[in-house]
Amino acid sequence: MAGRARVHGPGGSLDGFMAGPRQSIEHPLGEGGPELFQWFFSTRTFCRMHGGGDGTTGTDDDFAARGFENIGAWILGRNMFGPVRGPWPDETWRGWWGEEPPYHVPAFVLTHHARPPLEMQGGTTFHFVTAGIQEALRLARRAAGDKDVRIGGGASTLRQYLAAGVVDEMHCAQGPVVLGEGEPLFHGAGNLRALGFRVVERIPTEAAIHYVLRK
Amino acid sequence: MAGRARVHGPGGSLDGFMAGPRQSIEHPLGEGGPELFQWFFSTRTFCRMHGGGDGTTGTDDDFAARGFENIGAWILGRNMFGPVRGPWPDETWRGWWGEEPPYHVPAFVLTHHARPPLEMQGGTTFHFVTAGIQEALRLARRAAGDKDVRIGGGASTLRQYLAAGVVDEMHCAQGPVVLGEGEPLFHGAGNLRALGFRVVERIPTEAAIHYVLRK
Repeated sequence: MAGRARVHGPGGSLDGFMAGPRQSIEHPLGEGGPELFQWFFSTRTFCRMHGGGDGTTGTDDDFAARGFENIGAWILGRNMFGPVRGPWPDETWRGWWGEEPPYHVPAFVLTHHARPPLEMQGGTTFHFVTAGIQEALRLARRAAGDKDVRIGGGASTLRQYLAAGVVDEMHCAQGPVVLGEGEPLFHGAGNLRALGFRVVERIPTEAAIHYVLRK
Repeated sequence: MAGRARVHGPGGSLDGFMAGPRQSIEHPLGEGGPELFQWFFSTRTFCRMHGGGDGTTGTDDDFAARGFENIGAWILGRNMFGPVRGPWPDETWRGWWGEEPPYHVPAFVLTHHARPPLEMQGGTTFHFVTAGIQEALRLARRAAGDKDVRIGGGASTLRQYLAAGVVDEMHCAQGPVVLGEGEPLFHGAGNLRALGFRVVERIPTEAAIHYVLRK
């Protein structure tokens, strides 16, 4: 049986944004974007992943950890992979994460510009897919085998997969923040209710309100 | 000193809607809209207002009651006043609320179609304003004196006043619901952050997450 397609972890602002405007090398999450991910940055899961100390345990960390359980492949949008736009000028950009990215499984990067696979340390190989979101999902499912595929983001990628009706489960964490502008999380993601989603969990913490949607 | 312009009580869905689609006489809040106001319907404030028994006390009720404190005038959009569109065919439509509406102060109704003031029981008089949102606010402030003006809704009215930068304080209550379609709460309401809003309270209850934004 094919695994599920899962979304975990996008932060959301009260006014509906999951990343700030004007993404750049200095602002991978857009301006103001990091405010939406405060719940995540403090967790043990994040800190261990990025060598930043112990981090906190508890509900926020439980949600962070859940997003890495039983994942056999990732899908990343071009902007989540990096700030480079248009044709790859060369192959020097190797992702935001250094030589050992936190995926440890095949990661399929959506792009309009072909590029050879990029094998990183720790089990992550970036595959560049130019044939669209359905083909990337097909390849990711095949690579994942019995495990699930995590749709990693960014915002446009999430919205496209949501609207296509192929996402089975989605967690998001709403921070006590208004962002004013940026990349919308749900606006343009189709009719979530008609797609069959219901809110099945809603757990508040100091840093965020965690929501789980499931079909 | 002029009072403040305040918003209280709109429900919000996780996906950003504050009312359902296809408002009609059977569906004053649009289809699915009542799901967003569950936190309010159960409160003592609502029940006493509508003669429906005692209702609950506690945080939800505190927020409901707060929305009626120190209010000297209301502003209502045409759709919040009723389902009639276009020119008034006659004067038989007298609001959704029966002969004693729950306002008890002057209430200014935005419309493109003039109509004489309508004096109801219990202190509410509906004044129909055809000169736009700023003029309605001016008239409401004058009527309110030292008290505040409550911008009642609906969605389009709220968004217009938010975008115009004249709202000082806003409470909204997010229910654990995805609505899929409907009237957006914040999309089209301007850049809340640039307007100076910050989240100053965030209180979860069983029924909703209460947010207060203030400049």
